[in-house]
Amino acid sequence: MNAEFLQKLIQPAHTKIAMLIMDGLGGLPREPGGLTELETAHTPNLDALAARSALGLTVPVAPGVTPGSGPGHLAIFGYDPIHYEIGRGALEALGADFELGPDDVAARGNFATVDLEGLLTDRRAGRLPTEVSRGLAERLRTIRLEGAECFVEPVKEHRFAFILRGAGLGDALSDSDPQQIGVAPLAVRALAPDSERTALLVNQFIAAAQELLAGAQPANTVMLRGFARFPTVPQFVERYGLHAAAIAVNGMYRGVARLAGMTVLDVPGGTIADEFAVLERHWSDFDFFYLHVKQTDTAGEKGDFDGKVRIIEEVDGFLPRLLALGPDVVIVSGDHSSPAVLRSHSWHPVPTLLYARHVRSDGIAQFGEAACARGSLGVLPAIHVMPLALANAGRVAKYGA
Amino acid sequence: MNAEFLQKLIQPAHTKIAMLIMDGLGGLPREPGGLTELETAHTPNLDALAARSALGLTVPVAPGVTPGSGPGHLAIFGYDPIHYEIGRGALEALGADFELGPDDVAARGNFATVDLEGLLTDRRAGRLPTEVSRGLAERLRTIRLEGAECFVEPVKEHRFAFILRGAGLGDALSDSDPQQIGVAPLAVRALAPDSERTALLVNQFIAAAQELLAGAQPANTVMLRGFARFPTVPQFVERYGLHAAAIAVNGMYRGVARLAGMTVLDVPGGTIADEFAVLERHWSDFDFFYLHVKQTDTAGEKGDFDGKVRIIEEVDGFLPRLLALGPDVVIVSGDHSSPAVLRSHSWHPVPTLLYARHVRSDGIAQFGEAACARGSLGVLPAIHVMPLALANAGRVAKYGA
Repeated sequence: MNAEFLQKLIQPAHTKIAMLIMDGLGGLPREPGGLTELETAHTPNLDALAARSALGLTVPVAPGVTPGSGPGHLAIFGYDPIHYEIGRGALEALGADFELGPDDVAARGNFATVDLEGLLTDRRAGRLPTEVSRGLAERLRTIRLEGAECFVEPVKEHRFAFILRGAGLGDALSDSDPQQIGVAPLAVRALAPDSERTALLVNQFIAAAQELLAGAQPANTVMLRGFARFPTVPQFVERYGLHAAAIAVNGMYRGVARLAGMTVLDVPGGTIADEFAVLERHWSDFDFFYLHVKQTDTAGEKGDFDGKVRIIEEVDGFLPRLLALGPDVVIVSGDHSSPAVLRSHSWHPVPTLLYARHVRSDGIAQFGEAACARGSLGVLPAIHVMPLALANAGRVAKYGA
Repeated sequence: MNAEFLQKLIQPAHTKIAMLIMDGLGGLPREPGGLTELETAHTPNLDALAARSALGLTVPVAPGVTPGSGPGHLAIFGYDPIHYEIGRGALEALGADFELGPDDVAARGNFATVDLEGLLTDRRAGRLPTEVSRGLAERLRTIRLEGAECFVEPVKEHRFAFILRGAGLGDALSDSDPQQIGVAPLAVRALAPDSERTALLVNQFIAAAQELLAGAQPANTVMLRGFARFPTVPQFVERYGLHAAAIAVNGMYRGVARLAGMTVLDVPGGTIADEFAVLERHWSDFDFFYLHVKQTDTAGEKGDFDGKVRIIEEVDGFLPRLLALGPDVVIVSGDHSSPAVLRSHSWHPVPTLLYARHVRSDGIAQFGEAACARGSLGVLPAIHVMPLALANAGRVAKYGA
């Protein structure tokens, strides 16, 4: 659906929508014909809610396409993830919980090792420990450039996020990482005229970093790749008329929510219980709540079937606290599937539940992949979930007379 | 989905995909509430495979649209059949097993009858026997034109394919067939400047044909219509990274497969058993196999319900030979429906089965229209089948991080 078309129909209402996203929720059975993680989990509260809900399977990006977390979240928030692309550098900065702004260009950085002739011997500097990386990042933070600020945010092991902030910067830049060893890191080149000054600044930074790190062990250089600005997307309040809050612990999800114009709430403690406590505390302050649970995906990516089951059961235990707040609309879904048997994200459609007073419920008292395959929402693009939620929240006016 | 978007995500893999297409597979019950041809057929092997597969109903072109074999096949191969149109003339040439090339313009030809004043008395020359038609075609093959080659391929009864081959030809040409009797055949006119020379050549051919056939009984003239080039479509190897083989007996299907860049294998003998033998012989040579069974459609178009049932049962008997090859992904579907009760192609969605190790199987141990309507693939555009097959074959990289 055309987003502008929907936007014209948006009307105000005193209703609240809660969107509970279990990251990588969709799964697969251990053996063909068996039960998935979600189907294995004992989820009396989700099942009871399912009985009063419409069920379906969402396709985040397109049939057969395995989404990264960025595209998966954009889709469930109602943004076409093929149109709104979040570059690798921007994602790295978000993941480091860096507040990217409109004047920023971000890149993914690696600490690396070169030999005496300047040729790469290790693109990851032996995956140096995060603590060591942190110290090196501190050194790089002393670098000053003319006409732009720069930020270095350690991520994990050899990885860091590099951000350049200033007016008139461009992100049409080639990588300095040659993606192979035995050759020298590349100079960053501008791929469009508006990025020429930026290329100069980035190369100055790299030169300064090499000077600072010369002789350091094992990392004596840096490489940068995936230069990207933070994309501009229509804000939730304009597009949907919703004052939205995000409750998420990890930087990446907080960042995507910020991109959509949500107020990102702090979660002291950072557990799932803490997230639900934040939801309760702020319930009267917003129209829309996005609550993100990361641990389902983490377990899926580790291949920990039982761990994923346990997290789903834990979330199920908190569901009554959400329902006790009296939301008008509840969405329970994921941003993509992460079956433990695949130990990775996958292309499989995602179990999705939509509850509201006037939803046409399927009467299927089970929340799982097979149950959702029988649901009346069918197999639907994930970007259709927000319009359905808005309609059920009384926030979409009639079209035509 | 945007095809260019998918193409960018294609990654190599050592996996094999088998696509078994029973032409006109979809059917209807003899009486409302009864079983379709596929549901009537005793298909223990397809049913067992269905239990381990995801099921759905594919819409080849668009809801309510009855596809010809060309569009139906383009769709199941993943090409938007509304965007890639195969003109009537090109189809006629393909059907005659003529290897159309990029310099060719083809038309559908009719032998016809005119009276002494040159007015049409029979547009089909009494549907003259194919053998007679063959003799007349031989005569027309003696015609020589300046600046272009021409080919005449008999098809059936009064029909033949006409192909003009040469540099710089155009296919923006009007028909010579006035579609009524009592008037003279029309001169072919160029509908665009780039086709003016082609119009001259075609009219020269028609004049020469009339001279050769003057006094012949009952066919003393020819009519040409549906001028069309062979469309250019992205090749399987570029679009999907697949080295593909086609196993089909009839010219039309061999031609569409050739259009998509498949290697078209010979099928000595031409029976269904021979097709499966070719599959086995070439299994190690390709990544993708399209195996086409024509007889289901032929039976459907004849109104032969029981005959269609028997063909489906015959194919079911060969399925274990396909499965014994160990394909990573199996698709069983049709290019459109051809219900025997309608004696024609129809708009009904087509039963489709997708098997792979990590497909989320529906556990429905039956392959039929009603079973597929309950499947987790839902009702899906046929062009989504290839992306799903590629994903299940590990050939689509993650989108975004």
